[in-house]
Amino acid sequence: MKKVAVILSGCGVYDGAEIHEAVLCLLHLARQGASYQCFAPDKPQHHVINHLTGAEQPGSRNVLEESARIARGEIKPLSELDAGEFDALLLPGGFGAAKNLCDFAFKGDAAQVDLDVLLACKAFAAARKPAGYCCIAPMLMPRVYPAGVKGTIGTDTTAAQSFTAMGGEHIGCAVTDVVEDEHYKVISTPAYMLAQSITEADTGIGKLVKRLLEM
Amino acid sequence: MKKVAVILSGCGVYDGAEIHEAVLCLLHLARQGASYQCFAPDKPQHHVINHLTGAEQPGSRNVLEESARIARGEIKPLSELDAGEFDALLLPGGFGAAKNLCDFAFKGDAAQVDLDVLLACKAFAAARKPAGYCCIAPMLMPRVYPAGVKGTIGTDTTAAQSFTAMGGEHIGCAVTDVVEDEHYKVISTPAYMLAQSITEADTGIGKLVKRLLEM
Repeated sequence: MKKVAVILSGCGVYDGAEIHEAVLCLLHLARQGASYQCFAPDKPQHHVINHLTGAEQPGSRNVLEESARIARGEIKPLSELDAGEFDALLLPGGFGAAKNLCDFAFKGDAAQVDLDVLLACKAFAAARKPAGYCCIAPMLMPRVYPAGVKGTIGTDTTAAQSFTAMGGEHIGCAVTDVVEDEHYKVISTPAYMLAQSITEADTGIGKLVKRLLEM
Repeated sequence: MKKVAVILSGCGVYDGAEIHEAVLCLLHLARQGASYQCFAPDKPQHHVINHLTGAEQPGSRNVLEESARIARGEIKPLSELDAGEFDALLLPGGFGAAKNLCDFAFKGDAAQVDLDVLLACKAFAAARKPAGYCCIAPMLMPRVYPAGVKGTIGTDTTAAQSFTAMGGEHIGCAVTDVVEDEHYKVISTPAYMLAQSITEADTGIGKLVKRLLEM
């Protein structure tokens, strides 16, 4: 049974991990016979967004504690992730990937990646173990892999330009499909960068997980 | 296209809606060709649980605002739910169903149901429109339907005794199956009352949604 590490970034599309994508990742891993362990950075979220109104709200929440909601409590601090214990890595999207795992949401193509996140992702890359990035999470890839790494954030021109400016090679992709970089063993899918329904996100994530486990 | 109203109770298994169950409900509705609209009570959660430690934590959260995380912002206050506009009703589980939709978690078989929740559920029952209850949410059924309504919360003896004491007829059920009350058009499935994996919950919820849309 293949073991996959999943990195979450909170709980909710606007300030954390996109919940549908995260659950679909876990569902497809389990359905396709893999086991998984969730991880998240043990640090405050960048901010808290009221998901009813879209406005920032007072208060502080912890990325690990909020991610634990998606993982039903079965989660570990990202600092404990040892790539040697896993066969693959998987990152769902949501603004949390661009606000808590890195600062792309605020810095654009000058984005820096959280140190624990960078170390974890680079460990999988260095070991030539496959990794999957969903939605906006591929914005991490140009910081993790060497220049020219192929990835997709869908068809969004601005995000694509940033991906290119950061050193990646952006490839346009339909929501129901994936982009593979065979050399670096990394796969990406647009998910809710493009999805108009949960079934569209489901199709792309299902394909991504299938290829992740085959690689 | 059938329209289904989904009632959420927050965001996280220990103080709100069980996230996997909620997402699986939406996924199966969409896959099987139904549209859905999420609703939740606009009121404070009973309390906030740190899902990493299981301990109660300070602060107050609103059931509607937290449920909006699962619904990606596409949610309405439960007070706006008009059963006449929908073909069926669906309630995922999680402790939120027993803490925010009713007080079963604290009062046991003396539980009372939140008034907006009770009115909404009774409107579907009165119109003889089908309803599905997952996990611990079936504890609402004896307050919504007449005595003798058939339902399941799985194989948990204590919860089954409470269901019976409240006037329902409890029927033991495997996690991958459903219990139907054909007379009252209400279906229930144990989901995470019994599920050891997301795939087990997925199987039962998939069956429940299929029957809900066929009824």
